[in-house]
This record gives sequence, structure tokens and C-alpha cells, in this order.
Amino acid sequence: MTEPARRRPGRRPGSADTRGEILAAARRVFAEKGFDKATVRGIAREAQVDPALVHHYFDTKAGMFAAAMQLPITPQQILPLVVEGPREQLAERLVRLILRVTAAPETREPLVALIRSAMTNEQAAAMFREFITNALLFQVADRLEVPHLRIEAAFGQMIGVVLARYVLRLEPIASASEDELVELLAPTIQRYFSV
Amino acid sequence: MTEPARRRPGRRPGSADTRGEILAAARRVFAEKGFDKATVRGIAREAQVDPALVHHYFDTKAGMFAAAMQLPITPQQILPLVVEGPREQLAERLVRLILRVTAAPETREPLVALIRSAMTNEQAAAMFREFITNALLFQVADRLEVPHLRIEAAFGQMIGVVLARYVLRLEPIASASEDELVELLAPTIQRYFSV
Repeated sequence: MTEPARRRPGRRPGSADTRGEILAAARRVFAEKGFDKATVRGIAREAQVDPALVHHYFDTKAGMFAAAMQLPITPQQILPLVVEGPREQLAERLVRLILRVTAAPETREPLVALIRSAMTNEQAAAMFREFITNALLFQVADRLEVPHLRIEAAFGQMIGVVLARYVLRLEPIASASEDELVELLAPTIQRYFSV
Repeated sequence: MTEPARRRPGRRPGSADTRGEILAAARRVFAEKGFDKATVRGIAREAQVDPALVHHYFDTKAGMFAAAMQLPITPQQILPLVVEGPREQLAERLVRLILRVTAAPETREPLVALIRSAMTNEQAAAMFREFITNALLFQVADRLEVPHLRIEAAFGQMIGVVLARYVLRLEPIASASEDELVELLAPTIQRYFSV
């Protein structure tokens, strides 16, 4: 399926350019096929590189998605942070992690951009839906043996707070300290995770 | 400030057309000045009608905002529903009300449209922020003597659930029954309101 004629002259596999082209191809394939149906092989074909090279750059499809969307953190990084450590402090760890990742504009903006497109475009919504459930929420839920509905209620709480704090910038939640919000929100999340 | 020359010929005060023109004027004024700085007098001037006529159609500025944005329910209608009745069932009443208002596309869409514009446009965000806090959230919080931060945490929970259920359409939360969601969410809201 590769068509060498379409390759740019002088590009070597493994160059910085190759990584960028894989990510551009990934964005096209994810947008077209969604997260579930996109494959590493299909993205490699779109980028006209060997699938092994895609694997060399990106461990998993979820990691490639996170890189393509410039997300500040991958599901592979989130999972151990949440799952490891005392279960009774799980909610606090999770709330702090989300508040920290969203505190800086450069790590928050790609996330907000993804939600924004999901709100305005059904194709983007499908892509986001498949990624967030299959690559993140259900992974966390299954490790913790929490029903999927409960993790989505927790997701609703946190995405709503991020929206109110950073996008709508409602006061006083926009100026509340991390500790204040942890005190307020962690018991909610902990309850959803206690079954 | 009125310029009779700009009036449409043959339009009579009190006609259906007048109401529509007041709402169109209200949308322009709210978009330009935000909710707080917009006045009934300024909207009347923009619509070239007597302020008394605006008051005749719309009791309050919040009511006019709700009508202009085609919101399914006004703060004046929400407040008694939430505040009246046993305090220990307050959260359940509120969660059911929000789930019912957002269940039908025709009542949900104007709300989602408002959030969507607030996410993509700073002027719309300011307008939404001022309306939602001053006309709704702080009114509820002050009647119930709940700190503003706590009502915004509750708002975050509910807006996040509406987003996950209807916009992102995550499963299983998109297909969950009203009762399942009330059971899951009401204790969260009740806790925010218990101080």
C-alpha cells in the first residue's frame, strides 16, 4: 500500500520530520475513523512509514492519540498515579492531578480544545468519546473494580469544575486554592469510587 | 434617543412583532454589554420602544435573558422549585429538575448552545458567567445560606453530567435512567448544600 513516489525527497526515517508526519497522519486518521477504529497500521500507511517506526515513537495507540492532540499527559501516565497508593487517598490524588494538569494554560489548552471540538462537531465528539472511555475511564474503573457509571459521574464532576473554573471563570471557584477544591471535591470522588 | 425614522412602518406597540424585536434587541445588548451592565432601559432604547412595554412583556432582566436565549426555564421558575419543600430532599428535586429540563432536545439545545458559545467566545463567556452566577447560582446559594463555592461545585457536577450524557454521549451515563442518576448524584449535591 505504500507509494514511495509520494514520499518527500531526502526525508530519512527517524528524523524529527518523520515523527511530525506520523502525528499529522494520526490526526487525520483519528478524525476520520474515530479512536476505536484507527489502527497503528492504518496510521503508518497514511504517514507512509513502516508500522515498526510508529511503534518506536509511540508505545500505544492511546499514547499516539495523546501526542497527536498535544495532551499534557497520557493514560499510561495517569493510570499508575491513580491506581497506586492507599485506596482511601485515591480521590485526593486524582483531584490534585487534574487540578495541576489544568492549572497551566499550556497543558490545559489542548484539553479544552478537544472538549470544544467535541461540543461543536459530532465526528470530534465520537473520537473524544471513544478515547476517553476506552483508553482512560474504563481502564481506571476496571482496575479499581468500580462500575463504569460511577467513574463517569466522577468525570462529570471534574470536567464541570474545570469548565467552571477555567473556561467560564465563575467566581469564587476560579480563584479557589487547590487545597480548598480538594477538600470540597475529594469526598465526592471518593464516594463514587466506594462500592 | 429614540429615532422614529428607524421604526418599521405599520408596527403597533404590543404586537407579536414588537416582542420579537425586543428579544432581538436584548440579544444584541446582552452580547455587547454582558448580563450585568445591560439594562431594561438600554434594551428598550435599542428596540425603540417604551421601557414600560419591555416590563410588560418581561418581569425581570433575568426573564428577558432567558427568553432572548430561548432558555426552557427562567431563574424565577427554578428558585421556588428548589427552595420550597423539605431541605433534605432539596438535592433530589434539583437533580430531577435538571435531568428533566435537559432530557428533551428542544429544551436542552438552547442551554447547550449557550455553553458552546461561552466555550468559544470570551464575550459570550462573560455574558453567561454574569447571568449564571448573579441571576441563578448566587440567588439559590443566598436563599439556602450555602457558600458560593459550594453551589459552584454542585453546578460543576451537574453541567459535567449533562455534557457527558448528552453532548459527549458517554456510555453508560447516556443511557442511565433518571432514577439511577438521582441515586448517584443527589447525595453529592446534598453534601455541597449541607453546611
